[in-house]
Amino acid sequence: MKQYRVIEVKESVLANNDGEADQLREELKAKGTYLLNLMSSPGSGKTTTLTQTVKALKDTFKIGVMEADIDSDVDADTISQAGARAIQLHTGGMCHLDAAMCRQGFEALENEDPMDLVVLENVGNLVCPAEFDTGAVKNVMILSVPEGDDKPLKYPLIFETCDVVIVNKIDVAPYFTFDMDKFKQNVAMRNPNAKIIPISALTGEGMDEWYEWLKDQVNNWKAN
Amino acid sequence: MKQYRVIEVKESVLANNDGEADQLREELKAKGTYLLNLMSSPGSGKTTTLTQTVKALKDTFKIGVMEADIDSDVDADTISQAGARAIQLHTGGMCHLDAAMCRQGFEALENEDPMDLVVLENVGNLVCPAEFDTGAVKNVMILSVPEGDDKPLKYPLIFETCDVVIVNKIDVAPYFTFDMDKFKQNVAMRNPNAKIIPISALTGEGMDEWYEWLKDQVNNWKAN
Repeated sequence: MKQYRVIEVKESVLANNDGEADQLREELKAKGTYLLNLMSSPGSGKTTTLTQTVKALKDTFKIGVMEADIDSDVDADTISQAGARAIQLHTGGMCHLDAAMCRQGFEALENEDPMDLVVLENVGNLVCPAEFDTGAVKNVMILSVPEGDDKPLKYPLIFETCDVVIVNKIDVAPYFTFDMDKFKQNVAMRNPNAKIIPISALTGEGMDEWYEWLKDQVNNWKAN
Repeated sequence: MKQYRVIEVKESVLANNDGEADQLREELKAKGTYLLNLMSSPGSGKTTTLTQTVKALKDTFKIGVMEADIDSDVDADTISQAGARAIQLHTGGMCHLDAAMCRQGFEALENEDPMDLVVLENVGNLVCPAEFDTGAVKNVMILSVPEGDDKPLKYPLIFETCDVVIVNKIDVAPYFTFDMDKFKQNVAMRNPNAKIIPISALTGEGMDEWYEWLKDQVNNWKAN
């Protein structure tokens, strides 16, 4: 039996996405729920990173995950087996989520039982998702080593809007020409405040730094 | 000195993109110019594949390349050094190219000297570019091994609209869990007619099959 629901989310008819996002953030603050917007290219390892994160933190926080996808529900299945409450959002062809779509997903996921941490796994795309405030407290992106160290030059906005850049698949770095120092310089050009965390979601390397950042974020959000 | 121009392309104000695309295709047919639309995720190896292709075919065809990017011109520089006429199209944040944008680029690139083959390297994105007919004769996409064999399940439209799916980075397949048979099944679900060509643009493996397909395409387009 499926442990998750699939819902079709609709784009907002409201013009004021930023206002919608601020309102959602306020409501989540009142409930003590921290919403994280996780973005990346297709295939960078969002779901694997998230699966490991859920396994590591599920005894510390009550975690929910919203899996946004144009189609399919392979990710929600994986995530719900890892120990988070999961919901699959189908965007019906849309390349991003806005705050209203995020709210529809959140309300279906929460179902009157508040969570500590909710992660929105956005549609795999480095362009459009970066343009829309989803109501999240922070934006995090994953860039995997095989994608190359030049991506901040080509996709500026997503690097500008992210507080953390996770560099995944460092275990295969010897087989690619990815230059971490050059990548850090490229990120700094777009966003000098971005925190860069190199990891391998597969081997676990570097994951502790990511868990610590996330735990601090959620605890501070609930405390202040 | 730069061997290429950078132009800012603007989205069409016309509602009829399909009509614009058909008209561009007709005009290109009359000139004997074959336009190919090349799509992929960021970092799948579009530019490397294209650089190798230009080097292999530049004595057979007069080749032009339009590099669409939100920002930066690293790709046009690489391509022009390989031996193609290149132009960099900046989309000003837009996540795809439509036929009118493609025409603006094409006219600046051609400059009254018709080419045999023009390749549009679309914005790195598996979602939005697939929704717009650019006026190309055929659509080709690159999916790289590190992105995973499940992508046809998650990004259906791009697999439905592509005539050829190039699977790049097969040289690193031993370090990833990519299952080529499963991938072929997943592609066939979306598009049973898609031709799948496994390659490594880095080592050259499989590239001959790709060059043969492309040569046949251009020669047939000019002959018929």
